[in-house]
Amino acid sequence: MLLEKLNWRYATKKFDPARPVPQDKIDKIVEAVRLAPTSSGLQPYDLLVITNPDIKAKILPIASGQTQVVDASHILVFAAWDTYTADRINAAFDFVEAERQLTGEALDNWNAYRHRLLNAYVPRDARTNFEHAARQSYIGFGFAIAEAAMLEVDATPMEGFDADALDELLGLRARGLRSVTMLPLGYRQADQDWLVGLKKVRRPKEEFVTVIR
Amino acid sequence: MLLEKLNWRYATKKFDPARPVPQDKIDKIVEAVRLAPTSSGLQPYDLLVITNPDIKAKILPIASGQTQVVDASHILVFAAWDTYTADRINAAFDFVEAERQLTGEALDNWNAYRHRLLNAYVPRDARTNFEHAARQSYIGFGFAIAEAAMLEVDATPMEGFDADALDELLGLRARGLRSVTMLPLGYRQADQDWLVGLKKVRRPKEEFVTVIR
Repeated sequence: MLLEKLNWRYATKKFDPARPVPQDKIDKIVEAVRLAPTSSGLQPYDLLVITNPDIKAKILPIASGQTQVVDASHILVFAAWDTYTADRINAAFDFVEAERQLTGEALDNWNAYRHRLLNAYVPRDARTNFEHAARQSYIGFGFAIAEAAMLEVDATPMEGFDADALDELLGLRARGLRSVTMLPLGYRQADQDWLVGLKKVRRPKEEFVTVIR
Repeated sequence: MLLEKLNWRYATKKFDPARPVPQDKIDKIVEAVRLAPTSSGLQPYDLLVITNPDIKAKILPIASGQTQVVDASHILVFAAWDTYTADRINAAFDFVEAERQLTGEALDNWNAYRHRLLNAYVPRDARTNFEHAARQSYIGFGFAIAEAAMLEVDATPMEGFDADALDELLGLRARGLRSVTMLPLGYRQADQDWLVGLKKVRRPKEEFVTVIR
């Protein structure tokens, strides 16, 4: 079922600007991202959902003129924490502690884990921490691509944009965030998309996979 | 459908060692990874599927004694290219060129793209290239987690292991690979898993998502 949809999907090059994605489908794609697992459950990234036409027009040059960012009805932006801080880690641990109503030994274990993480992450350089956070955002990125395919919503995974310029435009640095990936969402305009008819190419299984029995 | 399964899944802490995952389900999970998109379609990582009990026993200390690596019937290891080289990029581009039987203008465009990538990636330092490749592997990692959930196969996303030691054990460095993540696959032993009954906690949508209308 998912595999069939993963074969159906492709990196859409031309969206139909007249066909927006319904809100209930956007909500489901966003929910898939929110449910994605992350290291220690910290969810060290934010998700932005952009529909504003002026902002989309300003993203166009930032994305090297790739028209998907203006033709797609929605753009998801995955923006990772610029580093791990004690405040961020403590807020995440406090939240889980409250949601699970931890007490006694469970709470002691939870706080021991919290302190191991604080000791490991907070002194580490910001680049290493950002890379770790950015990696987590790719699991959610993958879930968004998968859920969009399930709903037969077209999507274009994008890394090739000027992240610094996008951060500036969206005010991300002031929020301690750095953009990592974008995912325009819409519906393909098949008669104007050069990629839609081309064969999906993947490395053969025998070459991609090593089995150790 | 996928969302329901994403709510069902959790990071399994105790697998039933007597209940292996059937081969047809493993094949589907592997296929989801193979179908995952990657930057420029390079698929810059390999997937290892480990069932050998001796190797699993040797991974146990490398994974800080987390028993999932011995109790799960299969371990997926995602191992990214240690850097981008001209050979690797050319092999990937040659393969797509042959599979799509590109000629004329399509071939010219493809080769122009190839040279842009060669110029951008080959001179870049290995750490930056590896990080980029590792990020791609997380999309496949996400697809594996999603497809396992679809099939109601339990899984434990793992980063907390000694990657250098795993690389040594599996001979990855000699192949120009570095381990990034592991995904033990099996079936939960619910009566021995402290996490199974705990509430799934995620950041609230209002806090996780920013809408720009």
